[in-house]
Order: sequence, then C-alpha cells, then structure tokens
Amino acid sequence: MATEIERKFLLKPGLWQPAGPGRRMAQGYLSRDPDRTVRVRVVGESAFMTVKSRRTGISRTEIEFPIALEHAQDLLLLCHQPLIDKTRHEVLHDGMLWEVDVFHGANDGLIVAEIELPSEDTEFTLPEWIGEEVSHDMRYTNSNLCAVPFSEW
Amino acid sequence: MATEIERKFLLKPGLWQPAGPGRRMAQGYLSRDPDRTVRVRVVGESAFMTVKSRRTGISRTEIEFPIALEHAQDLLLLCHQPLIDKTRHEVLHDGMLWEVDVFHGANDGLIVAEIELPSEDTEFTLPEWIGEEVSHDMRYTNSNLCAVPFSEW
Repeated sequence: MATEIERKFLLKPGLWQPAGPGRRMAQGYLSRDPDRTVRVRVVGESAFMTVKSRRTGISRTEIEFPIALEHAQDLLLLCHQPLIDKTRHEVLHDGMLWEVDVFHGANDGLIVAEIELPSEDTEFTLPEWIGEEVSHDMRYTNSNLCAVPFSEW
Repeated sequence: MATEIERKFLLKPGLWQPAGPGRRMAQGYLSRDPDRTVRVRVVGESAFMTVKSRRTGISRTEIEFPIALEHAQDLLLLCHQPLIDKTRHEVLHDGMLWEVDVFHGANDGLIVAEIELPSEDTEFTLPEWIGEEVSHDMRYTNSNLCAVPFSEW
C-alpha cells in the first residue's frame, strides 16, 4: 500500500508549451466517495485501476494495479459520466518530474500541473510557468471534475 | 461483459444441513452505489474484484477479474465496514448448482440460497429446504447487509 503525496498548481498563462504530443488518457470513477475513490484509467493499450483513501493534508493511501484493457473499457461504461479526457505531458525541472494535464471535452481550457513528492517536506523549485497552488481546492480533483466539469464553473 | 441472472431464497427452518465445511469468504464494498457496486472478495488465497451494474428485474451486468491477494487485503481496509463474513456451500439439485451462504458476524443467523441462471426463463426445481423468495428484497443484497446487517433488523 503506497502513500501518494502530491501538490497541484495552475499554470501562468502563455509561459508553458508542450514539448511533444504527450499521452492521451481516458479515466472514470466507479466511486467518487472521498473515503474510497475508485478510478479506471486507459492510456493507449494499458489500463489501471487505482483506489485512493481520504486525503490527510496532501497525502493519501493509494492502491494501483494493472487490469485487462477489455475489462477497463467495460468498466468505463459503468463509471460516472462524463469521463475525464486529458493529455498528460511529463516535464523534468530541476531533477523533479512534473505532470502537466491538458484537459479536453467538458474540462477543455483547464491545465493543471502536479508534482509527486517522496515526503511531505521534500523541497523543490517551481518552474517559471507555475502559477497558483490548488492542492487544497477540491474542485480540481479529477473525481470532482467529472461531476462538475470546468466548463460549468 | 457478462450478465448475472440470479434468484435468491430463504431456507425453511431445520431442513438443510451442510454436507461439508464449505468455503469461508470475506467481502467488502468500495462502492455500494446500485449503479456501480464494487466488491472485493477474498476466498482462501484467491481474491477477486467484481463490479456490477444496476439490476433490471433479476439481471445485471457483471465484470469480474482476479486481483493480487495483497491488493485485496489492502482494499478490504478501505471498504465500508463491517465486512461480510460468510461460508458458502455448493449444493447440486436436479442438475443445477445452488449456493447456500451461511453468514457470520453482524449477519449471524442469516442463511440465503442463490441460483444463477443462464437466462431469465430457465426452468428449475426447488429443493425441499427452499423457502420464501427474496430476489426483489433489497435488504438481502450483500452490499446492503454490510450497511444494515441482519442483527439490526
């Protein structure tokens, strides 16, 4: 059972450009209950199920395992609709990996950058294109973005 | 994606006795939402995840796959509590398989028999120990039995 420690930021307008095509992913939620979110994600030919516990500060328990693509496609049909459709770009900055998610569909226009940390007090530097921190703004969780998408804010 | 067609019955008192020890199983729910129940089940060294859609009559869509025992044990900790603890006995009657679940813990005293059918109009005969049908009584679904256990009825 892993612990996910994550911080999330918006981007300053106009400063970041993707260096490549990124990886398009579809994901949906079988449970949006904050005590036990159940996510199904399909990236190309790969699929994963991820179950996360309630967040304490910026940390939470995460259990993730691969599942068959065929099962994932069936499960996505049962998930809360609409699904999350986004392209993930990986950006290395000062030795740390940033994931920049460019949303499509009902969340078109939203771009969010996340950094996963080995511990809550790990120090890191912010790329110049990083804007406001939204780690504690629950509107930006993917499980909320499929219930109240960015286009409806 | 399979379709589960199932009928469920109570037992007449005193007429059925288990022929063997059966298989003890622990199961919990990550989602009790009737549109997408997510069940984790551990039977001995095996573990499964099962996602079921909303029931239409006695039928519903079911997606089931094996998961690692280690993941299942972690997932059970995140499930709604208390977990379902029961012993399943398989009984052949007139060429059909009946599953008799003897519940323990918070559902102690409850015994339910289920038969899974290839189609809704499959004919079958009832063993003499079968009592009242409860296929449409939602109190008897396992996902409800972990929220409102038999001992609290």
